[in-house]
Amino acid sequence: MSNQNTPRSAAITLAAVRAVAPALANYTEAKIVGDLWQRPELSARDRGIVTLAALIARNQTIGIPHYTNLALDHGVQPSEISELVTHLAFYTGWSNAFSAIMAMEQVFAQRAIDVAELRAVSPALLPLDETAEAQRAARVDAQFGQAFPGMVQYTADLLFRDLWLRPGLAPRDRSLATVSALIAAGQVAQVPYHLNRAMDNGLTQAQAAEVVTHLAFYAGWPCAFSAMPVVKDVFEQRAAA
Amino acid sequence: MSNQNTPRSAAITLAAVRAVAPALANYTEAKIVGDLWQRPELSARDRGIVTLAALIARNQTIGIPHYTNLALDHGVQPSEISELVTHLAFYTGWSNAFSAIMAMEQVFAQRAIDVAELRAVSPALLPLDETAEAQRAARVDAQFGQAFPGMVQYTADLLFRDLWLRPGLAPRDRSLATVSALIAAGQVAQVPYHLNRAMDNGLTQAQAAEVVTHLAFYAGWPCAFSAMPVVKDVFEQRAAA
Amino acid sequence: MSNQNTPRSAAITLAAVRAVAPALANYTEAKIVGDLWQRPELSARDRGIVTLAALIARNQTIGIPHYTNLALDHGVQPSEISELVTHLAFYTGWSNAFSAIMAMEQVFAQRAIDVAELRAVSPALLPLDETAEAQRAARVDAQFGQAFPGMVQYTADLLFRDLWLRPGLAPRDRSLATVSALIAAGQVAQVPYHLNRAMDNGLTQAQAAEVVTHLAFYAGWPCAFSAMPVVKDVFEQRAAA
Repeated sequence: MSNQNTPRSAAITLAAVRAVAPALANYTEAKIVGDLWQRPELSARDRGIVTLAALIARNQTIGIPHYTNLALDHGVQPSEISELVTHLAFYTGWSNAFSAIMAMEQVFAQRAIDVAELRAVSPALLPLDETAEAQRAARVDAQFGQAFPGMVQYTADLLFRDLWLRPGLAPRDRSLATVSALIAAGQVAQVPYHLNRAMDNGLTQAQAAEVVTHLAFYAGWPCAFSAMPVVKDVFEQRAAA
Repeated sequence: MSNQNTPRSAAITLAAVRAVAPALANYTEAKIVGDLWQRPELSARDRGIVTLAALIARNQTIGIPHYTNLALDHGVQPSEISELVTHLAFYTGWSNAFSAIMAMEQVFAQRAIDVAELRAVSPALLPLDETAEAQRAARVDAQFGQAFPGMVQYTADLLFRDLWLRPGLAPRDRSLATVSALIAAGQVAQVPYHLNRAMDNGLTQAQAAEVVTHLAFYAGWPCAFSAMPVVKDVFEQRAAA
Repeated sequence: MSNQNTPRSAAITLAAVRAVAPALANYTEAKIVGDLWQRPELSARDRGIVTLAALIARNQTIGIPHYTNLALDHGVQPSEISELVTHLAFYTGWSNAFSAIMAMEQVFAQRAIDVAELRAVSPALLPLDETAEAQRAARVDAQFGQAFPGMVQYTADLLFRDLWLRPGLAPRDRSLATVSALIAAGQVAQVPYHLNRAMDNGLTQAQAAEVVTHLAFYAGWPCAFSAMPVVKDVFEQRAAA
């Protein structure tokens, strides 16, 4: 942890913001730094993951150095950042991850983060819930196996029997990042599966609702309003089950 | 107003365009500069707002300096640009606004626009239509209040009782920018509410149709074709009402 | 063709990737370079077009120089790259094309590609299938002609009676790029029309399925999963017809 417990103000950025949109600089300080990040519904560590996932999903490199520092300040480990980017390459596209890395590299260098601190490329994997994975695979195979054999195979082998089992980032945090990326990119069709998975992995309903609130600022109100009915449906179906 | 009444050609850009895609340079000059911007269905001032909103919504900083200059040339005031960016931070995400500001800062500096020309951070607000806002708030609260109390509160306090009432940009122009951003980002689910609001705020049907036409070039034909059925529905429902 | 037959490793990029996310560097080499691009379902030339279309649709300039070189290495002609960018200006928005050109210019300069090698700005056009175009135009005019006369006119005159008939890129390759851009941008509503057109223009079902698989890596798994039911519907309707 650095000696900064509140979000850093990005000095250069806020000076420019004040020169063009002083009201926006004021909203940033009063509402995002001074209010949103202080809300107890979601920890600052989780907000760091949610924000980075949103920026990576939206290919917004301008905020990556600031929020990488902030996430590290709030307890996300370098090895978890490394896994987060790797995970999001699959869920937001390879170039989004590569662009984020270009912007993160300076932060890792400034903080003298050594690659030896990061997880091994091929670690021992977490145990797989074979029953749940067999059900998922059977469902996807029945729907898409004949038309898209390559996708079905890659999805099983690369994602659910490899990426999700890497120990460098907890399944709950992978889910938090995945759901955040989906909402931030407006991809609500994929939210039900991954939000259910996130809540199975330990994300509470109050935390999930606050993820949407947090993302309203970082991805814009329309993304939050498009997500809310879908997220609410998941809440209701789980309550009824 | 500068002495340029037609869209400036971005000298460096068009040279590069000619080196890689001379046909595209030709389309740009013949169809965008020479045709689209000359169409009477929408003023050049409005086209400036629509284009900037689209670029900000799509995080396309490369065109921001050129189109900020163009909007200023066509009568959008610096204080309105400032408010536009502030408004779009809420509707397209904070980083989109910050990225735009980084690209606008040089234009403001080159034109010696002083922050004193911009609107106060906390001006006296426009009067609120309490009845309409009470209806909006009740509807959103009924749908989302229990699951997303933070979103419902922020939406009322920050957006409809604050941002939309700031006097630096007319409500009709805020609506024009909001609808443009939604269409340019492919967020058609939020178009009906905001297009109705825009037309209540004075945007005509012919102008709204031309916004879609204008955005076909700046956001691509698929965004326009995805918006058309939704926009047409709003037109028809208002005609039937 | 250069002397490189396999995808070039972007030296600077992979060094940065290894410093921040060594596992992602490993996936890139093992799964994308070593596996995906080697799959026989789609030629490397087609993969070059698909990848460039995805990057342009997503405004991801970081990968443009590498993949422009790769496409050229695999047999896409400079004149075809030039037409591809021109085509995608209409299908992904003008700024996406301009941003791509800024990133491509250096590649064209390094390879000493002369503008004289590119297609004429106004070439003799391919013959038009007047019957099919009359049907398309009548359908769009019936749905949108009254509300959006400008869009209907531009769509006929600029797109289907001009752009699509330019000889610099085969109709099948224009379709391949268009479908790839739509899937990569999450614009599935426009996929049925353009996928049918692509298959009419010679894209096979196996190739179309592999386009989705390829794009899972470059645009992210959620884009592929959102596209699959829509693409599958087209396959089934064509099989039933």
